[in-house]
Amino acid sequence: MKIIVDCFGGDKSPSANVEGAVLALREHGDLELILTGDENIIKSELDRLGCKSDRIEILHAPDVITGEDKPTDAIRLKRDSSMIKAISMLRKEPDIAGLVSTGATGSLIAAATLRIGRIRGIRRPAFCPVLPTMDGGIVGICDSGANVDITPEMLLHQAILGSAYLKNVYGIKSPRVAMLNIGTESEKGDDLRKAAYPMLKDCESINFVGNMESRDLLSGRYDLVVCDGFSGNVLVKTTEGTALELLKKLKKDIYSKTIYKLGALLMKNMFMQEKEFMNYHNYGGSVLLGCEKTIVKGHGSSDAKAVKICIDQAYRMSSGEMNREIEEALAYIQ
Amino acid sequence: MKIIVDCFGGDKSPSANVEGAVLALREHGDLELILTGDENIIKSELDRLGCKSDRIEILHAPDVITGEDKPTDAIRLKRDSSMIKAISMLRKEPDIAGLVSTGATGSLIAAATLRIGRIRGIRRPAFCPVLPTMDGGIVGICDSGANVDITPEMLLHQAILGSAYLKNVYGIKSPRVAMLNIGTESEKGDDLRKAAYPMLKDCESINFVGNMESRDLLSGRYDLVVCDGFSGNVLVKTTEGTALELLKKLKKDIYSKTIYKLGALLMKNMFMQEKEFMNYHNYGGSVLLGCEKTIVKGHGSSDAKAVKICIDQAYRMSSGEMNREIEEALAYIQ
Repeated sequence: MKIIVDCFGGDKSPSANVEGAVLALREHGDLELILTGDENIIKSELDRLGCKSDRIEILHAPDVITGEDKPTDAIRLKRDSSMIKAISMLRKEPDIAGLVSTGATGSLIAAATLRIGRIRGIRRPAFCPVLPTMDGGIVGICDSGANVDITPEMLLHQAILGSAYLKNVYGIKSPRVAMLNIGTESEKGDDLRKAAYPMLKDCESINFVGNMESRDLLSGRYDLVVCDGFSGNVLVKTTEGTALELLKKLKKDIYSKTIYKLGALLMKNMFMQEKEFMNYHNYGGSVLLGCEKTIVKGHGSSDAKAVKICIDQAYRMSSGEMNREIEEALAYIQ
Repeated sequence: MKIIVDCFGGDKSPSANVEGAVLALREHGDLELILTGDENIIKSELDRLGCKSDRIEILHAPDVITGEDKPTDAIRLKRDSSMIKAISMLRKEPDIAGLVSTGATGSLIAAATLRIGRIRGIRRPAFCPVLPTMDGGIVGICDSGANVDITPEMLLHQAILGSAYLKNVYGIKSPRVAMLNIGTESEKGDDLRKAAYPMLKDCESINFVGNMESRDLLSGRYDLVVCDGFSGNVLVKTTEGTALELLKKLKKDIYSKTIYKLGALLMKNMFMQEKEFMNYHNYGGSVLLGCEKTIVKGHGSSDAKAVKICIDQAYRMSSGEMNREIEEALAYIQ
């Protein structure tokens, strides 16, 4: 199994990315990694970690794509960047299974959508992050920003893609799929949702459980939520934003009085656990589903452990089983 | 100033609604209220409160619309309900300025949209709740569910409606208006957002500050967010849902160990303040903007104080100044 790790573009890159790669190599004996980015810097990071593995290759790429770059410009103008070189190599080499990047999301989605082949029958790849639910599980959101203008058929494809992903990577046997809507009744929503509902309901290869209101996202009652990229993006960012703002407020209020600080001291372990629970690094990266090859996007702030988890994810996604399942389900509805 | 209070349909109705009405009457010397619902029950509630004001009238309505009723059926079949009788009276009597209801949202929006006249130039009324921001202010979300299929022009109208509302009811001099989008750059989003951006930017009667990502909703940097009803609904319900789920988790975790319970005891006042901060009853109801008359929808769980705040809101909205401002701004862009 060969996977490329884009070592530049994240907040803690390249050191976190190189260290994550080394950690993943130690775990998977049959894994080979190609690291893209400035060769000298990557080499010195590997030296620092005392890693001399012959399962690591370096693909030199002097340039870096940042969040400031417009995706369409980045693809065209930054051909020597660690991300675009990684995408080009992934495209060319049949024996490379996937790519992990912590770089700019927009550029990665655009480059992968344009350059990497799609699974037969899939019109557009869909972006799928996961969030932790309150019962200790996870919930996938598909699509969360790759496709803002979509069709009912694409919602059905997302249900198939996301179900296969959760089954193969998270071991959820029969993922409960819900459609994001403004009410739970079957006739709710705009024209898109009204047209998609019967298609999802009639699809035998997924476990569709009906509409879901956004307030129930974290309830643990759903494994996958399908939605257009616009409202999916709103769903994910609102959840993260609200959690973050609330914790910030709590912290500020605790520091406002000595007695609160004292109380918080007694609850220190609990607050550490809450923080760990909400640390999205623990839940893996977001994946771009529907491509012929595996694309995992780690969070921009990923540390070494988070990068390692993303590589694990790519490893499990690339077994071949997942895409076979997707193709079968697609053939069935066409 | 005459306002109707629909006394049935909320979780704590009719007692909370009747008591809220009595509290509002005490504050506003020039206010007259019409209470709709079962006459005998309302009378006995008034007796219980010792209220014999001649500024209260009762309009008997034996039936009640619930959340189970389909809005279109409710309007047609439940003509004797407290909500539909209130809407009909509001429509007929020129001297009645507005309506406060804690009943079913869908039925109220449908009935008001169909039966109450619109401000000239407004195609569809828009639903606008407010949420508390982390700096102690509020943010309005318009539309949050009345219009799921909309046009760029409707987004502009919502900006004008919401700005006039925040100015007249919350005293915000020049409300900072943002458009909900999947990124802050001007060219982001789907076709709807791309078409609406220049229209919002060029409109001189509003203070448009650009696109907003949903994670910044509670930051205090925006006073009004304009969006389609689908993503607005997702935005509001995700915020409420995430806050609620997190607090539930925190509470559960506190009860899991004695030392945490002890710590929480020291922080009791702080937790009470957080709870009060997040109590949406304190921030008033959601309003349906764009109608010729005032429509305020209080939360289904409203207590007497919350109903009283909704009546205050309706009182301030009905001064006449607000709709005049909206008409001027609309004339300017047409």
